Amino acid sequence: MNILLHGSGNVATHLALAIHKTEHQIVQVYSRTKASAAALGNRLGVPYTHLVDEIMQDADLYIYAVSDDALESLVSLNIAPQAMHVHTAGSVAMDIFKGYKKHYGVLYPLQSLSKDKTIDFQQVPLLLEASDEVVKQALDVLAKEISGQVHHYNTEQRLKIHLAAVFANNFVNHLFHIASDIMESSDIDFNLLKPLIKETVEKISHLSPAEAQTGPAKRNDQKIMKQHMEMLKDQPKLQNLYRELSQMILEQYLHQS
Amino acid sequence: MNILLHGSGNVATHLALAIHKTEHQIVQVYSRTKASAAALGNRLGVPYTHLVDEIMQDADLYIYAVSDDALESLVSLNIAPQAMHVHTAGSVAMDIFKGYKKHYGVLYPLQSLSKDKTIDFQQVPLLLEASDEVVKQALDVLAKEISGQVHHYNTEQRLKIHLAAVFANNFVNHLFHIASDIMESSDIDFNLLKPLIKETVEKISHLSPAEAQTGPAKRNDQKIMKQHMEMLKDQPKLQNLYRELSQMILEQYLHQS
Repeated sequence: MNILLHGSGNVATHLALAIHKTEHQIVQVYSRTKASAAALGNRLGVPYTHLVDEIMQDADLYIYAVSDDALESLVSLNIAPQAMHVHTAGSVAMDIFKGYKKHYGVLYPLQSLSKDKTIDFQQVPLLLEASDEVVKQALDVLAKEISGQVHHYNTEQRLKIHLAAVFANNFVNHLFHIASDIMESSDIDFNLLKPLIKETVEKISHLSPAEAQTGPAKRNDQKIMKQHMEMLKDQPKLQNLYRELSQMILEQYLHQS
Repeated sequence: MNILLHGSGNVATHLALAIHKTEHQIVQVYSRTKASAAALGNRLGVPYTHLVDEIMQDADLYIYAVSDDALESLVSLNIAPQAMHVHTAGSVAMDIFKGYKKHYGVLYPLQSLSKDKTIDFQQVPLLLEASDEVVKQALDVLAKEISGQVHHYNTEQRLKIHLAAVFANNFVNHLFHIASDIMESSDIDFNLLKPLIKETVEKISHLSPAEAQTGPAKRNDQKIMKQHMEMLKDQPKLQNLYRELSQMILEQYLHQS
């Protein structure tokens, strides 16, 4: 397939590098910022443009790895309405293409990608959705060439997965941030917690999170929870978060036992 | 040293197995439950008892790996007041021994330990505190024989570390639980999120949590946050948690940028 790639950010870059290793051709990179278009185009050794008028009309597949805002305006452009068009967003419905394109779909990589960190793309789950069999087949073939984990989910499911990912990735990272702040407020190296953090994740490889739960809230240890609340008395938001998370855990296990 | 071990739970078991590999002797296991005392005693091949009156008086070091409640009543018993006594709790002050014993301290393993899961104890950070040089020396020697990560912290610091650990371990696991519930409410396998979860932890091995933060809240993407809040409208506690965590992240990055 001849593929035209919209975008030059984290997802666009990793996707481009993965596709670059297959027999498919990235025929052009489009990005609204000239420097970004050039950076990725040159990295791949393929043509690039930052001008909408110069976007090639004869590619087989148009991939939109752009911000949700940029996506809306790009989709509505009159570019190759008969070709296949797919976006890469976890939180955007497939139907954003409806009325503008004939064949469309979604190719969502369920991973936290950073431009400057290499990743084994074979291990990145790719979540596909397709408007019809033509797109489904084409996406499935492409996806399986770049990843060992290809799944098909509809928009409603993908939105749920994306929401779950916010809890398991973005919010978890923020809890690491909070823990790091607590440690550093007493000049203690955050690295001390790393073995515990590794084990936290290790545990859920063979136990469900419900089974893996430990701590004062699970044991309903009011004395320690009170002590922790007291330690957080000068940080009302943190204290509130501690209270609510403990309460949620407490209720979970009171109901279960 | 001749060591007497109070307790038969997760920490007691892992500590006993680690000490068992050194030249130090566990001379007796005490647990208030007969079956538990027997289980650990037999596993180690050492004497055991569940009767306070039978606790041996001539050990060099008494280790209390028991619940915080049990600790208080055990410490006040008139057993070997001239020997060394240490507890293993993250959230209990060293001074709990004051007035009852002459030489005392703390040996806190900063790890989530489960009886039925083996762990490389060499990788478990051991946090030590001592009432005097005698205890400090003895604990340091013992700790370094069973772990490659030995640190000295006072009670105030240890309490902070324990609080941070609740956020980084117990609360993080609860977020995994929430993510798992969201997935399973749509019949989607939680395993799909595992590569993302692994990467979440991998990232903070070379970035600070502040640098590693991503997601709608960090980008101040109001549209997606609204969509997620709407999806959680039937779960007010979860919706509230989503709002608060997003708000905390948002404020962090608004202030920084």
